[in-house]
Amino acid sequence: MAHLLWPGDERAGALVSDAALLAAMVHVEQAWLDALAAEGIAPATADLSRLVDGDDVEEVALAAEGGGNPVLALVGLLRDRVSDPAAASWLHRGLTSQDVLDTALVLCVREALDRVVSELRRQLESLVRLAEAHRDSAMVGRTLTQHAVPTTFGLVAATWLEGLLEAAEEVTRVRAGLPAQLGGAAGTLAASTELARLRGLEDPEAASVRLVRRTAEELGLADVLPWHVRRTPITRLGDALVTCTDAWGHVATDVVLLCRPEVGELAEPVADGRGGSSTMPQKQNPVLSVLIRRAAIAAPALGATLHTAAALAVDQRPDGAWHAEWDTLRTLARRTVVAASQASELLAGLQVDHDRMRLNLDAAGSGVLSERETMRRVLAETRGRTDAAPPSYLGATPLLIDAALTRARTFLESA
Amino acid sequence: MAHLLWPGDERAGALVSDAALLAAMVHVEQAWLDALAAEGIAPATADLSRLVDGDDVEEVALAAEGGGNPVLALVGLLRDRVSDPAAASWLHRGLTSQDVLDTALVLCVREALDRVVSELRRQLESLVRLAEAHRDSAMVGRTLTQHAVPTTFGLVAATWLEGLLEAAEEVTRVRAGLPAQLGGAAGTLAASTELARLRGLEDPEAASVRLVRRTAEELGLADVLPWHVRRTPITRLGDALVTCTDAWGHVATDVVLLCRPEVGELAEPVADGRGGSSTMPQKQNPVLSVLIRRAAIAAPALGATLHTAAALAVDQRPDGAWHAEWDTLRTLARRTVVAASQASELLAGLQVDHDRMRLNLDAAGSGVLSERETMRRVLAETRGRTDAAPPSYLGATPLLIDAALTRARTFLESA
Amino acid sequence: MAHLLWPGDERAGALVSDAALLAAMVHVEQAWLDALAAEGIAPATADLSRLVDGDDVEEVALAAEGGGNPVLALVGLLRDRVSDPAAASWLHRGLTSQDVLDTALVLCVREALDRVVSELRRQLESLVRLAEAHRDSAMVGRTLTQHAVPTTFGLVAATWLEGLLEAAEEVTRVRAGLPAQLGGAAGTLAASTELARLRGLEDPEAASVRLVRRTAEELGLADVLPWHVRRTPITRLGDALVTCTDAWGHVATDVVLLCRPEVGELAEPVADGRGGSSTMPQKQNPVLSVLIRRAAIAAPALGATLHTAAALAVDQRPDGAWHAEWDTLRTLARRTVVAASQASELLAGLQVDHDRMRLNLDAAGSGVLSERETMRRVLAETRGRTDAAPPSYLGATPLLIDAALTRARTFLESA
Amino acid sequence: MAHLLWPGDERAGALVSDAALLAAMVHVEQAWLDALAAEGIAPATADLSRLVDGDDVEEVALAAEGGGNPVLALVGLLRDRVSDPAAASWLHRGLTSQDVLDTALVLCVREALDRVVSELRRQLESLVRLAEAHRDSAMVGRTLTQHAVPTTFGLVAATWLEGLLEAAEEVTRVRAGLPAQLGGAAGTLAASTELARLRGLEDPEAASVRLVRRTAEELGLADVLPWHVRRTPITRLGDALVTCTDAWGHVATDVVLLCRPEVGELAEPVADGRGGSSTMPQKQNPVLSVLIRRAAIAAPALGATLHTAAALAVDQRPDGAWHAEWDTLRTLARRTVVAASQASELLAGLQVDHDRMRLNLDAAGSGVLSERETMRRVLAETRGRTDAAPPSYLGATPLLIDAALTRARTFLESA
Repeated sequence: MAHLLWPGDERAGALVSDAALLAAMVHVEQAWLDALAAEGIAPATADLSRLVDGDDVEEVALAAEGGGNPVLALVGLLRDRVSDPAAASWLHRGLTSQDVLDTALVLCVREALDRVVSELRRQLESLVRLAEAHRDSAMVGRTLTQHAVPTTFGLVAATWLEGLLEAAEEVTRVRAGLPAQLGGAAGTLAASTELARLRGLEDPEAASVRLVRRTAEELGLADVLPWHVRRTPITRLGDALVTCTDAWGHVATDVVLLCRPEVGELAEPVADGRGGSSTMPQKQNPVLSVLIRRAAIAAPALGATLHTAAALAVDQRPDGAWHAEWDTLRTLARRTVVAASQASELLAGLQVDHDRMRLNLDAAGSGVLSERETMRRVLAETRGRTDAAPPSYLGATPLLIDAALTRARTFLESA
Repeated sequence: MAHLLWPGDERAGALVSDAALLAAMVHVEQAWLDALAAEGIAPATADLSRLVDGDDVEEVALAAEGGGNPVLALVGLLRDRVSDPAAASWLHRGLTSQDVLDTALVLCVREALDRVVSELRRQLESLVRLAEAHRDSAMVGRTLTQHAVPTTFGLVAATWLEGLLEAAEEVTRVRAGLPAQLGGAAGTLAASTELARLRGLEDPEAASVRLVRRTAEELGLADVLPWHVRRTPITRLGDALVTCTDAWGHVATDVVLLCRPEVGELAEPVADGRGGSSTMPQKQNPVLSVLIRRAAIAAPALGATLHTAAALAVDQRPDGAWHAEWDTLRTLARRTVVAASQASELLAGLQVDHDRMRLNLDAAGSGVLSERETMRRVLAETRGRTDAAPPSYLGATPLLIDAALTRARTFLESA
Repeated sequence: MAHLLWPGDERAGALVSDAALLAAMVHVEQAWLDALAAEGIAPATADLSRLVDGDDVEEVALAAEGGGNPVLALVGLLRDRVSDPAAASWLHRGLTSQDVLDTALVLCVREALDRVVSELRRQLESLVRLAEAHRDSAMVGRTLTQHAVPTTFGLVAATWLEGLLEAAEEVTRVRAGLPAQLGGAAGTLAASTELARLRGLEDPEAASVRLVRRTAEELGLADVLPWHVRRTPITRLGDALVTCTDAWGHVATDVVLLCRPEVGELAEPVADGRGGSSTMPQKQNPVLSVLIRRAAIAAPALGATLHTAAALAVDQRPDGAWHAEWDTLRTLARRTVVAASQASELLAGLQVDHDRMRLNLDAAGSGVLSERETMRRVLAETRGRTDAAPPSYLGATPLLIDAALTRARTFLESA
Repeated sequence: MAHLLWPGDERAGALVSDAALLAAMVHVEQAWLDALAAEGIAPATADLSRLVDGDDVEEVALAAEGGGNPVLALVGLLRDRVSDPAAASWLHRGLTSQDVLDTALVLCVREALDRVVSELRRQLESLVRLAEAHRDSAMVGRTLTQHAVPTTFGLVAATWLEGLLEAAEEVTRVRAGLPAQLGGAAGTLAASTELARLRGLEDPEAASVRLVRRTAEELGLADVLPWHVRRTPITRLGDALVTCTDAWGHVATDVVLLCRPEVGELAEPVADGRGGSSTMPQKQNPVLSVLIRRAAIAAPALGATLHTAAALAVDQRPDGAWHAEWDTLRTLARRTVVAASQASELLAGLQVDHDRMRLNLDAAGSGVLSERETMRRVLAETRGRTDAAPPSYLGATPLLIDAALTRARTFLESA
């Protein structure tokens, strides 16, 4: 699963891979077939779980262009291989290819989200530790690249932490509402309703709706109106994933800056074979942050493509916009997992040089206290006196850090 | 406020206009000055409300390049004009320009969101009506542009409705959590804490935090950790707005298709001077839908820019990424309001030709029932018999429509 | 090489694949080593051509994260495997990993461009044929979805043809200027100049520059100033590729519209196993056009990512922006090749139903001649008389078609 | 013309403003009316030049939604105000609104391009000066944020210069081929051909084509096949503009980095009221670079929108995609002009601290010469000896700078 042009891709393992998608599609067909049987529509179900595997990816993929998507070929394969001819006949009845592909994508991306959330939890733990440990590590605050006023690394860590918390909230929220796509050819449940009717069920429409609910439950997904052309479930996923890469991108952008030799306040964790150069033995490149930034730079455009596709949905199934989503979402999901894992490693081993922070702050001189002087002048004008200057000028940083820590602990204790 | 290259822009009135922003910036300064006084930090407050108006936009805007943003110039103007010299001195103390600009943008966009929500409610009402009225209006369902199986216009309307409901949920959620940005030069609240200390307040840090809370409350915004470099509040706004334009884009894409003369199933509401051609008197162009599609095509890229900017945040204030957000968010917000208003008008007056729907369905012939025949064969194989075909093949459309209507009514009854 | 979520991917074969990139990187190392020897800097060269193959991709890819890119690992492998120890030592001397990766990407994308150009030539031939055959096939012209005035399918084909010609021009232009990237660690050619000096060459700087020229020539690439942080060569590639997908997207958008059953003026070529449905045997989906549209919808965002990366270049090598380019460019290039191939097949077999065009035009009625009536009134006002109406209202379509055909023939006869 | 949320907007003056567009639309109508008269189709022409002005923008803009674009309203205004009733009647005959709007946009953007080119020339002159002056100013080369090997500021300037040269080439090339859009309602020239026929001209089709050529010549634009749905002229403009903002973005990203206090190698030109802070008197923010980066971060998404719109063109006029282009292109063009002007000022006054460069290089220590040591070892292995180390390790930088300067001078001497 390694990838020459996206170093670190192996961190995502088989998540949302072709093989995982094939398995998820079979999972959807299985859940539907089981539900058909449970509702008394199909006479019986069958075990589909070992009928196809990763070796079939190539065949299904090659056949996918003809049908416009890989489902038709997969269904053909399953029907050929299932031993029970009734199951072969009943398989996929009532579904449309978009049902299977959309739901399978949702299942695969859900696994990716779970991995992202667990990485985010690890990161929050690291940041809680960093914010506590560096609560009083003063450093120069920089705005528009120039020295402004002092801050602390604890507050920097708390600010990163808040960003990751917000990302975790988005992912958790979207994860909780992931829907199954089950609507049949035009989202009317016509085929399954017809089958229920032909089988003599009392209220075929209600049976059809129960079938959907049962299948969705089995898959652990929400039971909603078919969304063949209402693509909010996809754009929400995209937005949540990009919110994650934004948050890590911000962290990584700070890190690459603060580990420049001229600043030297942070360093990436050292690891064997990490950060070397092909020609300069002395170099120690901040590779994790560089690769995280890469993901953050590339992600927003992928999220935008999902929105464009959503806006162009038409009829009862889109004529190209739907197809543009699949690999876009997959790529975004895998890259987000890779960046998540890299960010966990980065934050777990981040080296903070508080002496250097202090040195840089001292070197910044009195300029960083000029704001304080202004404040003192304001007061002098008003009251005619000022107190002696306090030893530091760190404002309410302890309270701000505490507020972030409290929020992080609440999140970490939940679930 | 009309705009030659974005027809319909006047629908957004003064929302998020330069004048509105200037007023909102003053509003922020006022709330902060009031809070300074209320907390006993400033000796008194002053009324800033009539000191600047729309006529000052040009001067402030021209001066904005020097400071990199318009706040410095505005504060200068306020200090010049406020009659009380103490107020002139205390004004803006403890704030940084990013506090004022970010919070003012949030205030202005909040008004835009309110307008969007009220338009969405109007649209949901129209769609409830349409879904009910056309619950049984059969039409041909189309997938990948080709005739598939029958559906009803009621279900089409219900599907649009669900998309708008999801958009409304996103907007409502984001609206509820909009935060004030109040952190001072580097997000540490150093200046306000110093002022509290110099004024002899007991716990200057706590006073500073109270100051923020009081100001945020006054503005009706959430009191959160400063987000100078944690831009989730902005990307959430962007994502919610784009989710709206997606939903309307989907509706409009359906409408421009269904009002093609060869299809003829829908028509836009007729209005004086609407949809004419500069050379062809017979034409009736679906102008509202065309202009809504325009917004939906252009919006995702604006949302992506907000994410890119978020990912590039650095230090205690970004070096360009922040500046890229302002006009991007404003443009996105205004265009969303325009599209909202156009979508309300479109849906309120949408003309549905159910005779033409029926004609097109009949013309589609037996092909649209071929799936039913397949289902009957499946059953015949299994059971050796099939029943007579039912008169229609509309699946569970009534139940699906009902589910959407219930959800819409719940939403409309809330708030 | 098939791809479950990008049906048709196999049409791009091994172009810009991991294996192709690995081979291209070896090719760059070979050309440089040969040039080092030819310039008398290295004592001798060695044959690197069989030292690594596709089986090594996994190992190199897994090692790529550590170095931040795959070159370090590849050089290690080559040094281990080359039999001559001097060659092992001299290999890659003077190069930096960015030199190797950028140049290899350029070589791989060049092959993709060649394939795109050859597909564009096939398409232009098809369109010349279509424009000639349907020069007089009148059809209704549609603007903003509504019937406007008559046109001919010949002019539609000529308009598509012009778009493809412009795309071909862009690709050809960019192809002609593709540069090698050869600059060493910081783009100064320091290492190679040093080697030349140590080897006692008379003018080491000039030798270094000759080395670059010789290597670039060997690779058939332009010899330019190092572009490690000047990324126009990459954005130009991206823009040219997106210009292609735009042009095909436009064609495919017309085709999906015109092959709707209600319009019926075009049909995609029929092929075994193409365009079927998983549930509806009667359907014939315009799969090629749908998949082309998919590519066109997803491409612009990829092109934008390349521009964003270019704008963020910094120092002597970018800290993440460079890394975001690789897979983005590769994905864009492969998808463009797939769409190219699909567009060739679409246009070669496009079925034009000119009877249906005529029927639709007739059904459009007198409205499509209303503009003519207006013109006649204008003249009547001016001159007091009008002539009898001519039998058609097709304007200068024959001359416009001829102009396009002439341009196409000139292009096709070139090269 | 100042703009609160895009500081510096006034640098673009009235370029591509609503008033400029209105004037350009009148210019197009004038050229066409003149050509109608010159070809003997209209009986006479009339002077339209003073009939509308900036005060009419509001009225036209407000009426634009009804027609879907502002042309219909403008034509109405012109017909009302022109004194000669024949001219009122003949005005706009043969044109369609898209002809007028597209051509007017091209005319306005052409002016913006001219301004961009003149700014680029100023910048190239500055960079020629900087590259010459700092040909030998050694500084530390940085890759992936870490110290790599030495380089010179002269080479940095030469690399910026090459990027600007490439941008200038793109703009110049696109500028040279800008086309008029003149095709009539469906791009067939039907109305003008009919008018020519009714007026008894011998070869009405040829007359119509001459009319187009004459109008295009009068406007200084290329005479090409109508491009109502073939949008390469627009995407080429977008790509060229974004290539400019990329190039400046790269420069500005370097500048904001190198003027950080910890690096201190560059400083922005000082100007009154520039770069101050609302609270910290000591600060000198690199405002020009920050604002340039802003433009570079926001531009790629705008360029992508133009491509998306191009790909979605359909029929004989697009149903929303065209409308999405207008304000996108205008915004991109104006922002590019603003960034151009800011970049000129930045480069003209850029302060280079070569002592600090030398200090930083010295502080980098022997690490930046480790590559040289590696090279010496390579040679030692091969030949058993190495020479003494040279005093610097600057490779072929003088030759690389010379090559760039030669290319720049050639460009500057042209035109």
